[in-house]
Amino acid sequence: MTTPNERNLSERISDDIINYILKEQLNPGDRLPNESILAEKLGVGRSSIREAVKLLASRNIVTVRQGSGTYVSSNPGIVKDPLGFTFIGDKNKLAADLLEIRFLLEPAIAARAAANATEEEIRQINRLCSETEQLLREGKDHTAKDIEFHTAIGTSSKNLAVPRLMPVITFAVPLFIDLTKNVLRQETIDTHREIAEAIAAHDPTRAHDAMYLHLIHNRRLITAQTQQ
Amino acid sequence: MTTPNERNLSERISDDIINYILKEQLNPGDRLPNESILAEKLGVGRSSIREAVKLLASRNIVTVRQGSGTYVSSNPGIVKDPLGFTFIGDKNKLAADLLEIRFLLEPAIAARAAANATEEEIRQINRLCSETEQLLREGKDHTAKDIEFHTAIGTSSKNLAVPRLMPVITFAVPLFIDLTKNVLRQETIDTHREIAEAIAAHDPTRAHDAMYLHLIHNRRLITAQTQQ
Repeated sequence: MTTPNERNLSERISDDIINYILKEQLNPGDRLPNESILAEKLGVGRSSIREAVKLLASRNIVTVRQGSGTYVSSNPGIVKDPLGFTFIGDKNKLAADLLEIRFLLEPAIAARAAANATEEEIRQINRLCSETEQLLREGKDHTAKDIEFHTAIGTSSKNLAVPRLMPVITFAVPLFIDLTKNVLRQETIDTHREIAEAIAAHDPTRAHDAMYLHLIHNRRLITAQTQQ
Repeated sequence: MTTPNERNLSERISDDIINYILKEQLNPGDRLPNESILAEKLGVGRSSIREAVKLLASRNIVTVRQGSGTYVSSNPGIVKDPLGFTFIGDKNKLAADLLEIRFLLEPAIAARAAANATEEEIRQINRLCSETEQLLREGKDHTAKDIEFHTAIGTSSKNLAVPRLMPVITFAVPLFIDLTKNVLRQETIDTHREIAEAIAAHDPTRAHDAMYLHLIHNRRLITAQTQQ
């Protein structure tokens, strides 16, 4: 009998491989040594390495390309739903609670983006804003573009932790669009546009307030929807 | 050749098992059907189920107890470092950036905790505050207790997303203690105490401000340390 806390061999070897990646300062896209070299370095068998690599791949720390090798993933350690929001049953409360977190984070992030975005990033934010608007006007699903828009703003903030927190937004957006039935609202278009313009103008206060307005608009929609 | 995005059979079956858990509304601690029943329900072989369960276990969605069965994990989907902070090389900038995020989140969370904490939760927060203080006074490692203290406050806020965001704090605290060399500071004790008292008094504004003071104290320590 093993207890839930008892860690098995594959997990210990995965940790050794993680430490190897850190110690050798391997970056995303870098190739790991092949199975037999790794087995020798860590003093374990090749089949143990193979099992450990499978675990690391399932946690998106490494990516195995058949016939080519094992590489450090592009966002190592981040899986689709890293914070386990999928397993929270009450989706109405979750949507409201995630929105509350967005109120705390996103206006400040937008302000930082206005201060720190490069010209290249500003062009990208504007492009994503236009593409989201286009999909909204055509009544098409704008979920993915909307997430990309908010993610680009997060990255432009230059805070290293922010891109890692994006699951809060990437999980909240489709939940929200689903609850509000993807109906076109002029305010969504207008507030998105104002955020993009404020960042392009490098105006942190205006970016902060525009993001706040956007979130207030979202909260009113969600409240109207869940009270019906 | 498979591309990084191509998902293999085990991953597809893992997703099927996740959907099964959600559809059947299994809760943390609930047991999954055994391998052969699951294989029949999902129309795949037993060895495929076994592989998929290994992947789910590595993502902490299920816990396998040898000789007993497979259970839904207590915090399904949350691994040790779900946001991949381990893989960010510049630990000084990461510590500063995580602290910036804590400034955005924790004062508001403390205010919610003051509004929503039960008497039982208040007793626990007070106990953890005293235990952390004791360790600080004895010059012992207070990392784990400090994390428990902040986590208890997060849970008391009753925002469903907050316990899931705790990795921001659980990763930031040891990083911070390490950078500041675990030296006793009276302000750490005093500000912790004030946060606990404000929550016990159900005073959201005072809890908000006490947490702000605590974080300012942390930021000053970290700035002094990294400028040396």
